[in-house]
Amino acid sequence: MGEFELIDRYFRRTAASPQVALGVGDDCALLQPTPGRQLAVSTDLLLEGRHFFPGADPRALGHKALAVNLSDLAACGARPLAFTLALALPAVDETWLAGLSQGLLALADASGCALVGGDTTRGPLAIGITVFGEVEPGKALLRSGARAGDDLYVSGSLGDARLALEALQGRIELPPGLLASARQRLDTPQPRLALGQALAGVATAAIDVSDGLLGDLGHVLKQSNVGATVDTLAALPLLDNLQAARAAGVDESLLLQCVLAGGDDYELAFTALPSHRDAVATAAKATNTRVTRIGSIDSQPGVRLLGAGGQPVHGRFASFDHFA
Amino acid sequence: MGEFELIDRYFRRTAASPQVALGVGDDCALLQPTPGRQLAVSTDLLLEGRHFFPGADPRALGHKALAVNLSDLAACGARPLAFTLALALPAVDETWLAGLSQGLLALADASGCALVGGDTTRGPLAIGITVFGEVEPGKALLRSGARAGDDLYVSGSLGDARLALEALQGRIELPPGLLASARQRLDTPQPRLALGQALAGVATAAIDVSDGLLGDLGHVLKQSNVGATVDTLAALPLLDNLQAARAAGVDESLLLQCVLAGGDDYELAFTALPSHRDAVATAAKATNTRVTRIGSIDSQPGVRLLGAGGQPVHGRFASFDHFA
Repeated sequence: MGEFELIDRYFRRTAASPQVALGVGDDCALLQPTPGRQLAVSTDLLLEGRHFFPGADPRALGHKALAVNLSDLAACGARPLAFTLALALPAVDETWLAGLSQGLLALADASGCALVGGDTTRGPLAIGITVFGEVEPGKALLRSGARAGDDLYVSGSLGDARLALEALQGRIELPPGLLASARQRLDTPQPRLALGQALAGVATAAIDVSDGLLGDLGHVLKQSNVGATVDTLAALPLLDNLQAARAAGVDESLLLQCVLAGGDDYELAFTALPSHRDAVATAAKATNTRVTRIGSIDSQPGVRLLGAGGQPVHGRFASFDHFA
Repeated sequence: MGEFELIDRYFRRTAASPQVALGVGDDCALLQPTPGRQLAVSTDLLLEGRHFFPGADPRALGHKALAVNLSDLAACGARPLAFTLALALPAVDETWLAGLSQGLLALADASGCALVGGDTTRGPLAIGITVFGEVEPGKALLRSGARAGDDLYVSGSLGDARLALEALQGRIELPPGLLASARQRLDTPQPRLALGQALAGVATAAIDVSDGLLGDLGHVLKQSNVGATVDTLAALPLLDNLQAARAAGVDESLLLQCVLAGGDDYELAFTALPSHRDAVATAAKATNTRVTRIGSIDSQPGVRLLGAGGQPVHGRFASFDHFA
């Protein structure tokens, strides 16, 4: 099967959205953005052995490759529109391609995000996606909008993906049921698109948690020129498998590490004025998403972690950095 | 140097264009498209050892990585707006990064195409770029618009990049001066942006010649449901170094192969009504670009090659296919 037949068979879709004037198959795709809207753009490159294990299930991989990109649109409060796919493949394996295509396009369809173009080449397995979304001018959630006094929130749960990774890399042992539950978070993250859009105009700043909560929060703090206090007693229970992990003997400091610096969560960390607590609760309820207040923004730079009785917690919580 | 410092040092640019509301450094970049315009999008992934030689000059590589993407915008008749960059690097080499950044951003500046976002990761060297441009609705040049009776044109010159590649891969020997001249076409292609925009509304169909003239023309013919006749006597002189290559003993069939199926040309192949010959000439003159009429579009499928005296030329001219 040649390059063009491969594209035809697995990645050509009829343009379904009124915003897609021309899809896969020409030199360029043509989008017709809603007049007046801003276009939000983000790109991610996933490599075998670095972002996913060799031999990863292609369907889960297709899902995740798009999910991590959609998560950036969510963090911006944008509505998904379209995406492009650049694929390097060591060989043409039709079963694998069919799986990747299914995982990718199922999430694309569920998110209203049309595949409009791409590039395929032979090489070490790599998946590059660029997503486009729309947002009203002035409504996009930025990293730079947090102010002292704001509440600090996260969506959903944190740390389960890292818990699975620790087990998969042989650093801890988990019972099969627990590993399967945690692994689902690692393999098939759900981007918080509905919540992000509901928070546009409500939250003051947002970021998606991909490299670990404290590291990603650090980007918000730096770009907003503020600091934060995080209540670890509020954050720790965000680990869905907390009780099961404790029962399996995972030590407490690793659990805190998973929650605060785990990575691969694809939840939203965001800030909002205390006067907007009702509006945040409304956004959470309207989108059926759990939202937890875990701290607040201060004028003093840096992050302060509080434990039981408001005592400071010390520890090194390194965020993921591909070149550190 | 960490991932974020790397981005800061080499790839952060102040948003210069009124269409870029937010550049590098947040979850998403924000573009503000000109109201009513369509957005043209294209993506390409370049891998070391496949699209460029290991050890390639980073400055030329930066130029070429963006040039091949801009060439897709040119083929569409779109005006460049912005691009994203996904970079996989085996290690952080500051001299190399500075070179890549210079080559990339020099062409970006010259083309009015702002770097608005990206992703960096550690891995086998790969450069993924997605470009965005603008075009008036209905004016985009598509592959599907060619009609029987149209003239067939190409811009600039063809085949020199392939001539260089043949020498660099040891299949032929070229004198150093000739190799240097041909190699310039391979290393630093110039996307035909001005011509593409001037042809919007004039040409009936267009494609950029990246995999070889006949192969790329084949996409136009297939999508337009037509065929073509190509005058090889008009096409062969498009090889800039034709006389020098003949003098160096390169055989005539290889020269024709370079021109008709060379690849890496990044010229435009396009069609237009015979009644628009003056308009094509005006577009060429206004953009200071050579344009050569090399044949015509027929209703009969396939491509017919004509030689001296209108005699048919036979030969296999395979286009580049990454998986064939």
